[in-house]
Amino acid sequence: MKQVSKDRRDYSFKITHQDSSTSARVGVLHTPHGDIQTPAFIVGGTQATVKALTNEMVKDIGGQAVLANTYHLMLRPGAELIEKSGGLAKFMNWDGPTFTDSGGFQVFSLGMAYKKGIDAVAHSSKGDAKQATSSGSQLAKVDDDGVSFRSHLDGSRLRMTPESSMQLQWQIGADVHMAFDELTSPLAEEKYLRIAMNRTHAWAKRCVAEHQKQWAEHAKQGKPYQSLWGVVQGARNKDLRIESAKFMASLDLDGYGIGGVFEPGEIPTVVKWVCDNLPPEKPRHLLGIGSAVSDLFLSVEQGIDTFDCIAFTRQARNGSLYTDQGRINITNKKFKTDFGPIDDNCSCYTCQNYSRAYINHLLRASEILGLTLASIHNEYFVVHLVDRIRQSIIDGNLQELKKKYIDVYK
Amino acid sequence: MKQVSKDRRDYSFKITHQDSSTSARVGVLHTPHGDIQTPAFIVGGTQATVKALTNEMVKDIGGQAVLANTYHLMLRPGAELIEKSGGLAKFMNWDGPTFTDSGGFQVFSLGMAYKKGIDAVAHSSKGDAKQATSSGSQLAKVDDDGVSFRSHLDGSRLRMTPESSMQLQWQIGADVHMAFDELTSPLAEEKYLRIAMNRTHAWAKRCVAEHQKQWAEHAKQGKPYQSLWGVVQGARNKDLRIESAKFMASLDLDGYGIGGVFEPGEIPTVVKWVCDNLPPEKPRHLLGIGSAVSDLFLSVEQGIDTFDCIAFTRQARNGSLYTDQGRINITNKKFKTDFGPIDDNCSCYTCQNYSRAYINHLLRASEILGLTLASIHNEYFVVHLVDRIRQSIIDGNLQELKKKYIDVYK
Repeated sequence: MKQVSKDRRDYSFKITHQDSSTSARVGVLHTPHGDIQTPAFIVGGTQATVKALTNEMVKDIGGQAVLANTYHLMLRPGAELIEKSGGLAKFMNWDGPTFTDSGGFQVFSLGMAYKKGIDAVAHSSKGDAKQATSSGSQLAKVDDDGVSFRSHLDGSRLRMTPESSMQLQWQIGADVHMAFDELTSPLAEEKYLRIAMNRTHAWAKRCVAEHQKQWAEHAKQGKPYQSLWGVVQGARNKDLRIESAKFMASLDLDGYGIGGVFEPGEIPTVVKWVCDNLPPEKPRHLLGIGSAVSDLFLSVEQGIDTFDCIAFTRQARNGSLYTDQGRINITNKKFKTDFGPIDDNCSCYTCQNYSRAYINHLLRASEILGLTLASIHNEYFVVHLVDRIRQSIIDGNLQELKKKYIDVYK
Repeated sequence: MKQVSKDRRDYSFKITHQDSSTSARVGVLHTPHGDIQTPAFIVGGTQATVKALTNEMVKDIGGQAVLANTYHLMLRPGAELIEKSGGLAKFMNWDGPTFTDSGGFQVFSLGMAYKKGIDAVAHSSKGDAKQATSSGSQLAKVDDDGVSFRSHLDGSRLRMTPESSMQLQWQIGADVHMAFDELTSPLAEEKYLRIAMNRTHAWAKRCVAEHQKQWAEHAKQGKPYQSLWGVVQGARNKDLRIESAKFMASLDLDGYGIGGVFEPGEIPTVVKWVCDNLPPEKPRHLLGIGSAVSDLFLSVEQGIDTFDCIAFTRQARNGSLYTDQGRINITNKKFKTDFGPIDDNCSCYTCQNYSRAYINHLLRASEILGLTLASIHNEYFVVHLVDRIRQSIIDGNLQELKKKYIDVYK
């Protein structure tokens, strides 16, 4: 019997440079929709659109790939519709690689649950330490087979399992899929972390099996390969993180995601535990890094290849803009008569064409163009910064670049 | 004494073609910021931005000039700030001609007043027939000297006179200013229409005087000319419209606006009364035409050179899109799985790159990109249609083009 699952001609990862003093590396992730030069910031496209930006703007910013959300897309417009349109990239007319996360994070962080520390998640499985359910509102209920939850759009009851997540992701058709995992609350008891991790591992095996089944079917139809990356969990617990990394390393996976909800400053430590125990030749993605600029450097140094984070565009829409001198709020009164660009050193479309005063006006007047111009700037900032990190590894001056930004963004 | 007001080297209007069977004409309006080929649809840029579009998008659509709003800009960010930035075009980084309306329309149609037929406007001047004030909410109060009103943003008390409107418009610095006029409600009594028209005429004279004073000052500083167009009023009354047109023709004005609030189907008749009594060599602008496609043709046939209307982009944001086969609502369920473009015949960026299904998804998901893509399409439709009207006059086949659209958009 031919092992179609090994026939991955259109997908590969090659490391081209290794930093001499850290675990940072430069590589090329080759996908059926194009190459990604790593380290790379993967642009957030939750609902099959990068908020407020056209695809041309995303390309101009330097965006190499877009990450959409299985949970959001299954609800609207539906994975089947995206498949029918020719897949995610075709649907949104994005000429490049795409990622999808598994939907796990969103299911577990539905609505206020996330803000309250995922405390609206109840656990019904045998032996579960019950997580806090003080809010009384149980939006998601996990058992060993999967998760039952309600749509945040219409409250309808839905069910997601490792198998259904894989099926949905194959329908959506991104180049990189994430395995379906259980996210734990930062408030979860120690005992529960192991239960959740073991479940994530059991689910990862089921994801691999379903993925191979899907790939066999798609290969028969001459369709391109879609890669599967496992998600390492284990919260802030060193033993669990190492165990989880080793477990994922033992499976037939194309790459690895690092999941979890973190407090400020925790990311680099957890990333180190994990990356030190993953096979070096495969790519690693830090899921939803947050907006701490220093974490970009500290994670790359531990061997992270790709990131995603929607905070930069969200902050932009609130007027919070990144500059080489630190973050500013452009809606502040002092920028009303400031006719200079957001950042003198920035080459983005916004900084090349519009003044602080104009963007201040647009955002104060609730004009859509303000959201677009601010998003362009912040997204350019982070994409371009990771590009510079990549170049600095090649040039051997990562530490100099890091010093500059670590000082500004402590 | 040198008559600086006659020194208008940077401003001219030249008619290059005249239709053989109607009063339609083709011309070039030359301004210090560039030429406008007429007939032209002037793109709405109320708050110094074309809603949801970058300037590059407006250029791509074929937009030749942008019309901003004195009332909105005086409130936010302030005319003085715009002057300080180098004028409207510089402030918004628009590389082309700009118009401002006088603020009169907005002052008289504040808030619900407009929806209720301007019935929230009270008239305190001697001899005034009181307009309906059933709402009890007097947002604007007119007297012979000017109008007192409250800001729709913070309720602060404000005052506008012909002189202050001119001063504000010179500060904003558009290439075309409109004289400050009094708008009457469609519900106003016949007797009141004459009172309001006479006031508009008295104000026009004051506008001319203030405009010449401003021009003298600006000319001394080597600044470019800004033209003043008078606004013809007189509601739906033939005698008043003719009288108003003749009065405006007697003043030293650079062009003419036609103002008023109309019921469907009334525009072409009123436009004919007015245009037949204006000097043919000067440009005529139909203020806020509404979204009746047939009116574009019927007004051009009476000699209208430029239009503006924000309805096309507003409709776009609500999913109501123009096609050569009629208007569609793209958020309709039937478009969910329609992978064709909005209009097969359309060459706009949206139709060249995105499907009906995708735009349906974006608007249903409240995504900003949906607003942008829909706005591009509708604005392209109307700008491009007026471009084709212009070409059809040159080619001598205006009636053929008209027939096609009149049949679709009755």
